[in-house]
Amino acid sequence: MKIEIIAIGDELTSGRILNTTSSFAARNLYEAGYDIYAMNTIGDTPSLIGEALKRALSRVDAVLVTGGLGTTDDDLTNEAVSKALNRPTMPNLEILSNIRTHLDEITASPVSRLEKLAWLPSGAEALNPQSRMAGYQLIHDDKPIFFLPGVPSQMQQLLVEEVLPKLSTWHEDHRLTTHQRTFRIFDLPETEVNRRIATLDLSPDVHIGYYPVFPEVHLSLTVRDKKTNNAKRLFKSSCKAIYTVLGDSIYGCDRDSMQRVVGNLLAENHFTLAVAESCTGGLICRRITNSPGSSAYLLGGVVSYSNSLKTIYLGVTKELLEAHGAVSREVAEEMAVGVRARSGADIGLAVTGIAGPGGGSEEKPVGTVYIAIATSEENWVSKFHFHGDRNQIREIAAQSGLDLIRKYLLQKAQN
Amino acid sequence: MKIEIIAIGDELTSGRILNTTSSFAARNLYEAGYDIYAMNTIGDTPSLIGEALKRALSRVDAVLVTGGLGTTDDDLTNEAVSKALNRPTMPNLEILSNIRTHLDEITASPVSRLEKLAWLPSGAEALNPQSRMAGYQLIHDDKPIFFLPGVPSQMQQLLVEEVLPKLSTWHEDHRLTTHQRTFRIFDLPETEVNRRIATLDLSPDVHIGYYPVFPEVHLSLTVRDKKTNNAKRLFKSSCKAIYTVLGDSIYGCDRDSMQRVVGNLLAENHFTLAVAESCTGGLICRRITNSPGSSAYLLGGVVSYSNSLKTIYLGVTKELLEAHGAVSREVAEEMAVGVRARSGADIGLAVTGIAGPGGGSEEKPVGTVYIAIATSEENWVSKFHFHGDRNQIREIAAQSGLDLIRKYLLQKAQN
Repeated sequence: MKIEIIAIGDELTSGRILNTTSSFAARNLYEAGYDIYAMNTIGDTPSLIGEALKRALSRVDAVLVTGGLGTTDDDLTNEAVSKALNRPTMPNLEILSNIRTHLDEITASPVSRLEKLAWLPSGAEALNPQSRMAGYQLIHDDKPIFFLPGVPSQMQQLLVEEVLPKLSTWHEDHRLTTHQRTFRIFDLPETEVNRRIATLDLSPDVHIGYYPVFPEVHLSLTVRDKKTNNAKRLFKSSCKAIYTVLGDSIYGCDRDSMQRVVGNLLAENHFTLAVAESCTGGLICRRITNSPGSSAYLLGGVVSYSNSLKTIYLGVTKELLEAHGAVSREVAEEMAVGVRARSGADIGLAVTGIAGPGGGSEEKPVGTVYIAIATSEENWVSKFHFHGDRNQIREIAAQSGLDLIRKYLLQKAQN
Repeated sequence: MKIEIIAIGDELTSGRILNTTSSFAARNLYEAGYDIYAMNTIGDTPSLIGEALKRALSRVDAVLVTGGLGTTDDDLTNEAVSKALNRPTMPNLEILSNIRTHLDEITASPVSRLEKLAWLPSGAEALNPQSRMAGYQLIHDDKPIFFLPGVPSQMQQLLVEEVLPKLSTWHEDHRLTTHQRTFRIFDLPETEVNRRIATLDLSPDVHIGYYPVFPEVHLSLTVRDKKTNNAKRLFKSSCKAIYTVLGDSIYGCDRDSMQRVVGNLLAENHFTLAVAESCTGGLICRRITNSPGSSAYLLGGVVSYSNSLKTIYLGVTKELLEAHGAVSREVAEEMAVGVRARSGADIGLAVTGIAGPGGGSEEKPVGTVYIAIATSEENWVSKFHFHGDRNQIREIAAQSGLDLIRKYLLQKAQN
C-alpha cells in the first residue's frame, strides 16, 4: 500500500523551520508496513496544494497532508482542498459546539477566527472532535486522505492515535510485514562496509542501505514479506551473516549511541571513568552525561584547554609541556594518568590535539590527535590524523576516545 | 525565479534520517532572493527520480537535486537522470584522473567502485572536480540543474560555494532584493515578543515571523522589493524599531550563537573564564570551545559530576556538601569561587542542578538549577526552575549560564 505525504507551509519552503513532521510520519508509516511513495513540501499556495493533492490521488492508495489547518489568514489548506476536490466547506457541528463550549477558556481569540476550525470540506470527519486539535479524514475516490495540523506534537499524537489505527483497517491485505534493523559502525569507511557485505550471498528479498551519518556509517537491513514467518527467518539469518563480516565494528543497533554502549559496558564491569579533554573541550563528558544514571560510572573530568590547567589539575609538568608540546604522546599519557590518579577513577581517558582551523604545523598538522587510556594495569596512547573542519575533528576525536574505551572493555571481557 | 528541490534517498522516505539538507538549501536560496516552488523527497527509485525531475523542469526555472551520487549500489541518481533526460553516462576525465591521483590515500576501496563517481550524464560539469565531493551541473532545456551529494556537510559547502554564485549570474533580472534578518532572543517568551512587536506601527510591506527554536525565540524580519532603495530604507527603520522594544533581550542576529557573543565580549574586555559544571556535564565548555580562538578567553574547567570531584578539584568541603546538598546556593558559589581561584581566571562560572528524570524531591524538584558567577569584586548566585526533559534542562541551564556572563559584561561596559 503506497502513501504520499504532503507538508504545507511557507515556513518550510523558506527553510526557516526544519520539517520534522514528515520524517516522523514517514518513519512510523514505514515501520507499520506501508511504502512511502513520495514526500512533498509546498508553500501556503492554494493552487499548489490542490495540484499536489490531485497528483497524489492519481498515483497512491492513501494521502497524508500536514499543515495549514489553523485559524490565521495564512492557513489555506481547507479552502484549497474544497476547490480541488469540488467539496464545498460546511460547518462541522460537533467541532462548532465544542468550540462554543470552551469559549470561556479561550476568550483571547475572536469567535469568528476559532470557528474557522469547524468549516471543513464536505464529507470531512474530524479525527478527534473532543480535542482542540484540528485534523480530519476524507474518503475521496475510495482513498483515505488524512489532514493533520503542522504543529509537531499535535501531528504526532493524531498520527499515532488516529491515523495508524484507521489505516490498518483499510486494505488489511495490502500490508507487508516489515523487519528492519540499522547497524551502527564507526571504525570502517562506507566503501569497506559495502565490500564486506558484497562478499555475502544475501537473498534478493533482503534490502541493504548504506548511510554515512558523520562520523558513523549506518547499514540498514530491511526484509518485507506478506508471509510473517518467511520474513522473520530471512531477517534473522541476514543479521547473523552481517555480524560474521563486520563483528565488533558494529558498536550498536537502531537507536543505540556510542556513549550509551560505553556507559553500559562500564556499568556492567563496575568501572568508573574520569576524562581529561583538551581539543574536545568537554564534548566527551557532555556526551556521556546525556544519559540519565551516568553518575554511576562517570566521576567527571577536566577541560584542560589551557596549558596552565594541564599543570594545575592534571599534574602535567611544565618541563614535559615544553619538551614535547601540549599535543604529544607524552602529554596525552600524563593527562590520562593524572586525571585517573587525582579523581580515583578506574580508567582515565585523555584527548589532546589540534582541531584547527589554526594551530597546525608541518610536523603536527590540523587533525593530529593523541588519545590516551590509563588503567591500573597499563597505559596506551594512540595517534590519529583526522580530516574535516573543526567541529568534525572534535566529534570524531570524542567518538574515537569512547570507541577505544569500548574496545578495551570488550577485550577485557574476552580474557 | 522559481526553484524546486528534489531530495533522493530511501533513508529519507523511511524516516530513518531527518532531511536537513533540503531545509538548508531552501533557507539559503530563499535568503538569496529565489522562490522555492516545491520540495520533494523520494526514494532511490530511478523511475520516480526521472519523473520528479521532468515535472520540475516543466514548471520551474532551476532545479536542485540532492543525494544518490555516491559509490554504493543504492546510489542511482546518475543512472536515472541519464535515462530521463536521454543523456548517456560518460566518464568525466578530470574527476577520473583526480581519483587515480589520490588512489594511494584511499587504497582501502576498490578502484572500480570509486570510478563510479566519474561516470556522469553527458553534458555534466563537475562543480568542484579537485575535491573529493561528488556534485555537478547540467543545463537542460536552457535551465540549470544542480546535483549535490546527500551528505549534509558536502551538500552545504557546494551549495554555498558553487551553486549560489552560479545561480546569481543566471536570470539576474528576475530576482527580488531580499533583506532578511533573524533576531535571536533568549530571555523572553514568544508571546511577550509578539506583544511588544504589536505595539510598533510597522509597514504592511514588512513581514514578521515568530519561531520558537528551543531554548530561544527567533524573530524574522523580511522585506522584499524590486526597488533596492525602498526595501533597504524600510528594512533599516524596521530593525531600529525592533531594537527599541526588545533591547538587550536580543542577544544576537542571524547566525550568531550565545557562546560566540559571550566569547567576543570576553575577548574585548580581556577577561578569562573558567567553568565548573555539574548537571550540564561539559556542555558549557563544549559550546565555548566550538569557536576557533576560544583559548584566548577560556582557560578550561572542571566537570564535577561526582561530589568527590567537587572536593578534589574545586575545594568544596564535605561539610558544606553535607549541610546544604550538592544542589544548593552555597555549593554553587563555592564551585565558582573554587574554579576561579585555582585556575587563576578573571571570572568563575558554576552550574549545579537536577536535570532529571530522577533525583528530584519536593523541596528541590527536577529542573532546580543554581548558577553562580565569581569575580574579583563580588559573587552572585541565581536560582532557576527550568521545565522540560533532561536534555532541555541541560541546554537551557548552559544557555542561562552564558547569558548571565553576557549581562554581567554588558553592565560592566555601561559603568
